[in-house]
Amino acid sequence: MPTEFNIIRQYFTFNETRDDVVLGIGDDAAVLIVPEHHQLIQSVDTLVAGVHFPIETSAEDVAYKALAVNLSDMAAMGAEPAWFTLAITLSDNNEVWLEAFSESLSSLAKKYNIQLIGGDTTNGPLCISITINGFVPEGKALTRNKAQATDKIYVSGTIGDAALALAAWQGQCLLRKESISYLNEKLNRPKPQIELGLLLRDYATSCIDISDGLVADIMHVTENSQVGAKIYFEKIPLSKEFNFNLTDDALIIPLVLSGGDDYQLCFTIPVTKQTEFDKVVKENKISVTCIGEIESQPGVRCIKNNKEIDIQDAGYEHFTND
Amino acid sequence: MPTEFNIIRQYFTFNETRDDVVLGIGDDAAVLIVPEHHQLIQSVDTLVAGVHFPIETSAEDVAYKALAVNLSDMAAMGAEPAWFTLAITLSDNNEVWLEAFSESLSSLAKKYNIQLIGGDTTNGPLCISITINGFVPEGKALTRNKAQATDKIYVSGTIGDAALALAAWQGQCLLRKESISYLNEKLNRPKPQIELGLLLRDYATSCIDISDGLVADIMHVTENSQVGAKIYFEKIPLSKEFNFNLTDDALIIPLVLSGGDDYQLCFTIPVTKQTEFDKVVKENKISVTCIGEIESQPGVRCIKNNKEIDIQDAGYEHFTND
Repeated sequence: MPTEFNIIRQYFTFNETRDDVVLGIGDDAAVLIVPEHHQLIQSVDTLVAGVHFPIETSAEDVAYKALAVNLSDMAAMGAEPAWFTLAITLSDNNEVWLEAFSESLSSLAKKYNIQLIGGDTTNGPLCISITINGFVPEGKALTRNKAQATDKIYVSGTIGDAALALAAWQGQCLLRKESISYLNEKLNRPKPQIELGLLLRDYATSCIDISDGLVADIMHVTENSQVGAKIYFEKIPLSKEFNFNLTDDALIIPLVLSGGDDYQLCFTIPVTKQTEFDKVVKENKISVTCIGEIESQPGVRCIKNNKEIDIQDAGYEHFTND
Repeated sequence: MPTEFNIIRQYFTFNETRDDVVLGIGDDAAVLIVPEHHQLIQSVDTLVAGVHFPIETSAEDVAYKALAVNLSDMAAMGAEPAWFTLAITLSDNNEVWLEAFSESLSSLAKKYNIQLIGGDTTNGPLCISITINGFVPEGKALTRNKAQATDKIYVSGTIGDAALALAAWQGQCLLRKESISYLNEKLNRPKPQIELGLLLRDYATSCIDISDGLVADIMHVTENSQVGAKIYFEKIPLSKEFNFNLTDDALIIPLVLSGGDDYQLCFTIPVTKQTEFDKVVKENKISVTCIGEIESQPGVRCIKNNKEIDIQDAGYEHFTND
């Protein structure tokens, strides 16, 4: 049986080395250099087996998602990701599982040029907590508190796919066979919108990633910015697979508005920058859609068929839903 | 029942504000300023209920220890602590427990002038993972890899008290009634040696905190520095309470050499700086003891009654001991 030291040595000492890591894993702490005239961006996200992902999720998907949701927080801040620490609690030290987890984590880290700089492995029920670090030039962080009335509200990608996959896994609906792999990929392998986040530094007045649910996340922005929002249900981008599998509004509406887990970005663009922004994202082949606008009246309103629909304002709440 | 947002708002939004925290809890990530000409020091430590502390440990003690062991990593690097993130997994959201945990965490944070800048609360078996951040002036971090032959080996405080308290809790020995509170304090409330760590920047060639056990931690230093060490058992500082409770070498030796959990510092001082160092620590009323010296011959040797004793080289290994 590998010991704790050997687990870190064998599975979590990857070979990437960044110039700004003076000392990585293997001491009491890492020694790191934040570039001049930049601010450090840091956040933590934890995934618990059975709560944030089905117990039977593969080691590869667990590793991918644990890091991807943290990268998504960097994207939402307009940050360039740099380093992360990993605290992993394992109920047993299955070497096949660890190897698969480690390879998947390492591969995603390599893709985004980020380095694992600290780790702690402990014994207990499966739980992965990652603290991620990135940089922004001074004053360039995207936050939730600067959206202004008349700003246009955008989302990236499509909304609701991850929630649909989760609903199917929970037995709330059946998926067509040909959609299963696409939708599970959206749930298990959300693509962090880092490139879009970096681009938004020059355009957006606010930004958030959609983890709790579209409406709940827009509410985080409107409450922090002391404004309100109106969104148009028909404008919310849905995937072909989503539309292919669902026809009942009673399921469509909550999945789209409150589903969460998409890890797309939701952001606001001032009207004066909209034309230029639309051109730039098109040039960069990034998919974004304008779904509404910020208003001075507090609250979030959703219009469907020219009528305001009742919004369930609940996002994903670990302690109420589980 | 409080929701996740409310738990963070109610229990983990303390009032300390540091000037270097541009944006704290409440966005996708924190925005932070590392002072010019300083390096960032970062590490992560997780405590799992039933593994790192007895399940019946009070919320106050759990909070204290979770932060203190992380502060100890900053001390071992010679870093000035600044910020931390908290990932806490709770099996239920007992408000009395949360309130006690939060107050204890906040009180220790205030004592060391550090700010909680990110949090994630999840539902599951009790587990606390903290990532801590601090600074050192460029090139001043204390590491494990620069100890040199002839350097003197020191430890702070006394060794073995925490291990004795744990052994008693595990039923391996009985404590005298009048020692229980002193020893449990040593186990549950280790004092992070921040002041000593800062002072060591100008004197020590290497430093580590004693968490895995004295010999195991010295081995981390000797292996990283490609040297060896000789320590003298009789020189290792033991508390009055330790000596008062134990007379049997069969228990004393493993507790002192392999017990761990003391969170004292173990460090090396070049002979040329020893006199000045001894004077400075005395002036600062910091308790340190020279227990041996670094040698070029690899391995760690422990001398007792002029004879080399057999060293169990195992530290505290979560996956082998539990």
